[in-house]
Amino acid sequence: MKQSQLFAKTSRKLSESEASKNAQFLLRGGFIDKSSAGVYTLLPLGLRVLEKINKIIREEINAIGAEELLMPSLIQKKYWEKSGRWGVDVIYKTSTGTENKDKKDFEYGLGWTHEEVISAIAVKFINSYKDLPKAAYQIQTKFRAEARPQAGLLRGREFSMKDLYSFHESKEDLDNYYEKVINAYKNIFKRLGLKTLICETGGGDFTKEYTHEFQVLNPAGEDTIFYCEKCGFGQNQEVYKPEAHKNCKNPIQSGRAIEVGNIFKLGIKFSEAFGISFLNKNGEKKPVIMGSYGIGPTRVLGTIVEEFSDEYGIIWPETVAPFQVHLVELSGKDSDGKVTKAAMALYEKLVKNDIEVLYDDRDASTGEKLNDADLMGIPNRVVISEKTLAAKKIELKIRGSKKTDLISEAELIKILQK
Amino acid sequence: MKQSQLFAKTSRKLSESEASKNAQFLLRGGFIDKSSAGVYTLLPLGLRVLEKINKIIREEINAIGAEELLMPSLIQKKYWEKSGRWGVDVIYKTSTGTENKDKKDFEYGLGWTHEEVISAIAVKFINSYKDLPKAAYQIQTKFRAEARPQAGLLRGREFSMKDLYSFHESKEDLDNYYEKVINAYKNIFKRLGLKTLICETGGGDFTKEYTHEFQVLNPAGEDTIFYCEKCGFGQNQEVYKPEAHKNCKNPIQSGRAIEVGNIFKLGIKFSEAFGISFLNKNGEKKPVIMGSYGIGPTRVLGTIVEEFSDEYGIIWPETVAPFQVHLVELSGKDSDGKVTKAAMALYEKLVKNDIEVLYDDRDASTGEKLNDADLMGIPNRVVISEKTLAAKKIELKIRGSKKTDLISEAELIKILQK
Repeated sequence: MKQSQLFAKTSRKLSESEASKNAQFLLRGGFIDKSSAGVYTLLPLGLRVLEKINKIIREEINAIGAEELLMPSLIQKKYWEKSGRWGVDVIYKTSTGTENKDKKDFEYGLGWTHEEVISAIAVKFINSYKDLPKAAYQIQTKFRAEARPQAGLLRGREFSMKDLYSFHESKEDLDNYYEKVINAYKNIFKRLGLKTLICETGGGDFTKEYTHEFQVLNPAGEDTIFYCEKCGFGQNQEVYKPEAHKNCKNPIQSGRAIEVGNIFKLGIKFSEAFGISFLNKNGEKKPVIMGSYGIGPTRVLGTIVEEFSDEYGIIWPETVAPFQVHLVELSGKDSDGKVTKAAMALYEKLVKNDIEVLYDDRDASTGEKLNDADLMGIPNRVVISEKTLAAKKIELKIRGSKKTDLISEAELIKILQK
Repeated sequence: MKQSQLFAKTSRKLSESEASKNAQFLLRGGFIDKSSAGVYTLLPLGLRVLEKINKIIREEINAIGAEELLMPSLIQKKYWEKSGRWGVDVIYKTSTGTENKDKKDFEYGLGWTHEEVISAIAVKFINSYKDLPKAAYQIQTKFRAEARPQAGLLRGREFSMKDLYSFHESKEDLDNYYEKVINAYKNIFKRLGLKTLICETGGGDFTKEYTHEFQVLNPAGEDTIFYCEKCGFGQNQEVYKPEAHKNCKNPIQSGRAIEVGNIFKLGIKFSEAFGISFLNKNGEKKPVIMGSYGIGPTRVLGTIVEEFSDEYGIIWPETVAPFQVHLVELSGKDSDGKVTKAAMALYEKLVKNDIEVLYDDRDASTGEKLNDADLMGIPNRVVISEKTLAAKKIELKIRGSKKTDLISEAELIKILQK
């Protein structure tokens, strides 16, 4: 991709309405655009990162036998009433713009979670123990009427969510699947470069048992967690009890954290509300036991920026970077065009080798180009200039490192194809 | 994929609330689930088909230099007011569930089209003729408060849309891009197996010029078009004038048609409303000239079913089929399990050869399995039975053909890898 042709541009201007680091860097880097408080467009660069996050999530969730589907956002009042969630604070309700239509027919609650919809589907396909277990997920847009949306992509009114739902014949089978999801989540966050702590928290209305959150220690987080690096203990402040850690001598630590995932044993609450039952091996009718498991891909995107940046901009992990290489042409007083020619040739060679490259072919100053490269945070920055041409080398700099290396074209391709 | 593990199941039951063929077959085949009138879940099989449609669209739209982004659905009132579309019939408006919050802050119109949002973005990135042309698109969920949603996926309240927007310095440049989009659309519909006619229609508030629709002649369509197969003339009934075809001696024909795409020269309506201007080469400030171009992937999915089916079910074109092969194991009185063993071995071999295969491993009758295969419409049906094992062959039947062939495993793989 040539940078001169990108739909969006970088900006030096700080946004006055955004306090968070992730929003500032993502806005300035041309990854997102702000539509209104808590509502963003993912510009082409941001969508590239999001799709890489989604790909990792899909691979790991498919690997535990879940099938992807896509549920709607318009959810009828009758479904929310069955679960008792029509009246929650965070639900957006719809009506039409036209006065003379039957308003009732246009009244939906926008999906901020999908237990109701998946339950209404599952009841049609689950009849027997032979139909169990089942698991289905989607990566879909959610809507939450947050009173004070803040922290950029960490808490929005419209955001993406991977929500997985599982159905079991017994508590034991749910427990087994729950462990599988924990492992899948560990794989996902490891591949995303995020170090997570698993913390117990409350189950709200659904269960008296603890549920679990995957937390990333970070000062931008809204939660406070208590954790022990030695024994793996972790609790959200909401449920924290010092005596729960009394068998370990290591001192407890606490810190702010961002919740990037949560997992939940729903039990039979929705099965009973929606009548999801099955005949067991003895021909007895039993309610299905359910679990639900979330990861917010857009929040993960924001978290990665909070975790990986310096004063100059973002430092993307290789696995989610929008491009592998930022090829920067510094023509300087290049009157005969040989720098441009060499940069273009390298660009074509990299593309041919299936390396994702953003080629800064813009007519801009050296300072502007290098500052933008730091802001955008692509892991490998390659400079072609009169100086590198004279040395018959290419300058490679790893984003976040201070060191530059002069290497050959063949060495560069070898490094990038590793 | 093993059919016994599919999240959804086929059903023999006709839906009472659905009159259309596409809804009936897609519901019965386990491709979609109905949530409420005009609102559907794409079940795993349906999502597979939709993703294949989307992939074809992306490839052809990327090829004409447009970049993909993702805009939000929550669109502030102030944007709709700028374009004068806050009061339209089809807009869903939101409020929160909570009485004591400032209602105004939660009032959005759900995106049923995105000219307003893309205009509010474009104004930030377009300043000079050097920034033009630009083109960006998304594949995203749209919401329309249809009074009478009907015809399954042909007209829903929630549906997917590929919407492309382009920005130009002159009418000539827009005209050139418009032709490029027409070619891209021709490629898309050809790859999808759909024969389209390009028809002129009205421009609504935006333009006095005609705009163009891509129409598929089909009795399930809501539009009536007049067309000539000889000279390529086509007009929607809305604008049809017999004298427009007077230079061709071929008789005009008319028929019902489904609109699967539309393309639109927006001109400067949105540029003026949102202040999208640029400095031309002479330093003069000019409004940007815009175009907008839609294809509805979920409607396309429904259209494909309306076009390609028989009395038994769907007949998917190869390019969008959820799987290439439906491998049906007919164990019959197979007491020693050798049919199952052979079917499983072939399944693994096909998977290893990167062939997408749905393996009907269910404990069901021959009739049920073959009927389901016809209903689901996967292009190649392969049967393994005692009879085929005795002949040391595999039975291949192309969906829609009456003929079955006994061929070898090697021949099968060769056919499928063609």
